Amino acid sequence: MTSDAYQRGKAKAEATNPGIEETLRDRYDDLLPGFSKTMMEVPFGHYYTRGVLDDKTRYLTTVAALTALGGQTAPQLKVHIRNALRSGATKYEVAEVINQMALYGGFPAMINALNAAIEVFEAEETSDD
Amino acid sequence: MTSDAYQRGKAKAEATNPGIEETLRDRYDDLLPGFSKTMMEVPFGHYYTRGVLDDKTRYLTTVAALTALGGQTAPQLKVHIRNALRSGATKYEVAEVINQMALYGGFPAMINALNAAIEVFEAEETSDD
Amino acid sequence: MTSDAYQRGKAKAEATNPGIEETLRDRYDDLLPGFSKTMMEVPFGHYYTRGVLDDKTRYLTTVAALTALGGQTAPQLKVHIRNALRSGATKYEVAEVINQMALYGGFPAMINALNAAIEVFEAEETSDD
Amino acid sequence: MTSDAYQRGKAKAEATNPGIEETLRDRYDDLLPGFSKTMMEVPFGHYYTRGVLDDKTRYLTTVAALTALGGQTAPQLKVHIRNALRSGATKYEVAEVINQMALYGGFPAMINALNAAIEVFEAEETSDD
Amino acid sequence: MTSDAYQRGKAKAEATNPGIEETLRDRYDDLLPGFSKTMMEVPFGHYYTRGVLDDKTRYLTTVAALTALGGQTAPQLKVHIRNALRSGATKYEVAEVINQMALYGGFPAMINALNAAIEVFEAEETSDD
Amino acid sequence: MTSDAYQRGKAKAEATNPGIEETLRDRYDDLLPGFSKTMMEVPFGHYYTRGVLDDKTRYLTTVAALTALGGQTAPQLKVHIRNALRSGATKYEVAEVINQMALYGGFPAMINALNAAIEVFEAEETSDD
Repeated sequence: MTSDAYQRGKAKAEATNPGIEETLRDRYDDLLPGFSKTMMEVPFGHYYTRGVLDDKTRYLTTVAALTALGGQTAPQLKVHIRNALRSGATKYEVAEVINQMALYGGFPAMINALNAAIEVFEAEETSDD
Repeated sequence: MTSDAYQRGKAKAEATNPGIEETLRDRYDDLLPGFSKTMMEVPFGHYYTRGVLDDKTRYLTTVAALTALGGQTAPQLKVHIRNALRSGATKYEVAEVINQMALYGGFPAMINALNAAIEVFEAEETSDD
Repeated sequence: MTSDAYQRGKAKAEATNPGIEETLRDRYDDLLPGFSKTMMEVPFGHYYTRGVLDDKTRYLTTVAALTALGGQTAPQLKVHIRNALRSGATKYEVAEVINQMALYGGFPAMINALNAAIEVFEAEETSDD
Repeated sequence: MTSDAYQRGKAKAEATNPGIEETLRDRYDDLLPGFSKTMMEVPFGHYYTRGVLDDKTRYLTTVAALTALGGQTAPQLKVHIRNALRSGATKYEVAEVINQMALYGGFPAMINALNAAIEVFEAEETSDD
Repeated sequence: MTSDAYQRGKAKAEATNPGIEETLRDRYDDLLPGFSKTMMEVPFGHYYTRGVLDDKTRYLTTVAALTALGGQTAPQLKVHIRNALRSGATKYEVAEVINQMALYGGFPAMINALNAAIEVFEAEETSDD
Repeated sequence: MTSDAYQRGKAKAEATNPGIEETLRDRYDDLLPGFSKTMMEVPFGHYYTRGVLDDKTRYLTTVAALTALGGQTAPQLKVHIRNALRSGATKYEVAEVINQMALYGGFPAMINALNAAIEVFEAEETSDD
């Protein structure tokens, strides 16, 4: 029996990342039983599907946080930059959010995140062709 | 002679915080000559007035960053929560942004920020009477 | 209908903090519908009840993390120090874990956490009388 | 003349990392005279040999801290994961400690540390053959 | 028998904080045997007495680090601001170092540290009368 | 019309990094109009040219901060280590500042920064030939 949070989260996660639960399961569940299910249920089921905020705002606030937190989060930052673009944010809006983080996470964190964003923008443009 | 960035920043800062430059000057400029002017020119003139993002989104991304960075920023977090409310965000949207930061800054940072937000909401409601 | 994670987490949370869900509900659920339930379900249901580690080790690793992260987490640090003691850790073991964090979170973070721990130890001793 | 802390620390450090003082000396002592000796004396002599905690708990709390602190510590995280395994922790216990850090250092920090752990587990398994 | 590092560190620590080892011993050594001695030996004996840098530069770099790390370190930040002043730094130099940290630790961390510094400057001026 | 801060900052930035504004403009200004000019005006014009501190002290405090902040800042750390050397700091002084950060940012952050510094020292020595 699966919970409502799992159902909601799974639908949300698979919509943007088809096959994500299976990928996580293959990589992590032997080590941490139930890990892939928890990832559907917790970040997606309990957080990303709460409503109140539209997806674009959610992803932009996530980009803000990961930029301000600095270098630990480069792979996840790129995922959420991509999510922001696919939720209707322009690359100018994403860059603007990152730029402003100079005031909170410092200039090095901002520049590093901007470089990560440029990689995503270039990859997205190439993949559109 | 004052720069364009100063003019823009000063107008923006004074619109939400009347008298802010003078307050900063009285407190800090003896120690750090030009500090109050730099505060008008840099955060407000070079960042908060860049456009591309509306004020509400700007302040919500700032609330996200300050929550994720944890406890160092409580006084500034409250300022930006207030700014977000005055730019049209509801208290539910502010709470939602903070809540989501559990995933990035951890649960303790989220709870502490939520408590700071509740203090702001209560003060704002009282001051509306 | 409640999920298994909720049931597990609720039982765990209430065992050490009787009335916790109701306290959280009264304080946060108007602002963030479902918040108190998520707190039962996520930290307690999906993490603290996973097994593999005994409670004492879980709480000591949490004390380690909150010490290393520095000042944002004093209230939560105290909660987990108390949990560690109640799971069978001695105050010497708790102090030792904090002490070692000098190497990872720095000496100021360590001293501040040690001071928080001493407050907890003193309160616990008083309440035992 | 060497101090007691140096003697204790040196013995501890060489037991798990034979030749470590010489390696550190060759790399760092020209630049920072006495660096390798301080590394024996301080982390190992003043911290890792204090007793009260068994080695397994010490290394698991270190893994917790380095995970929560995020990306700056990947090389050191791997060293301490290896130390935890060699002190009797199973890979499941290590993974569990890391997993729980989602609540304190955030999900990106947790996932990145889990990926580092998997690299260590795979290298250890290969080296056992 | 005490080590050279202890002797050096003790002399350095007592020069600026008479009675510091005894204060630390009374507060912490029951809980953590040897803590006060380690504090003489490690930060003071292995770090603050290494030479190469003059005291003023050492303390200013410490003020820089504690500012950039944010709020966890307010009590220690004040200690090191005081140390910097007593090593010949002017209050303008201390303020300048803190001010520059806006670029690395963010504006909120900078402002909070500046407010801590002003408290120290005022207390020092009063105590000079 | 350009501001005084821009003029001062531009002169300072170009003195150590000839062509820097143009490099930044080509890479970032399409995405963030005015970015390269802000970089001249803000970090260099409003901070690095304020006087009170000599350049060597400024760069050493920056090295301290970036070390203590950990891994996010490796590329910027290297830039400022190079700036410190070119402002008259010896490699021993730079190493000493980094070494001391073990006490504030932890041993892993210190070691990682020391390794970054060694790369810079080796590159500088090679380029002197």
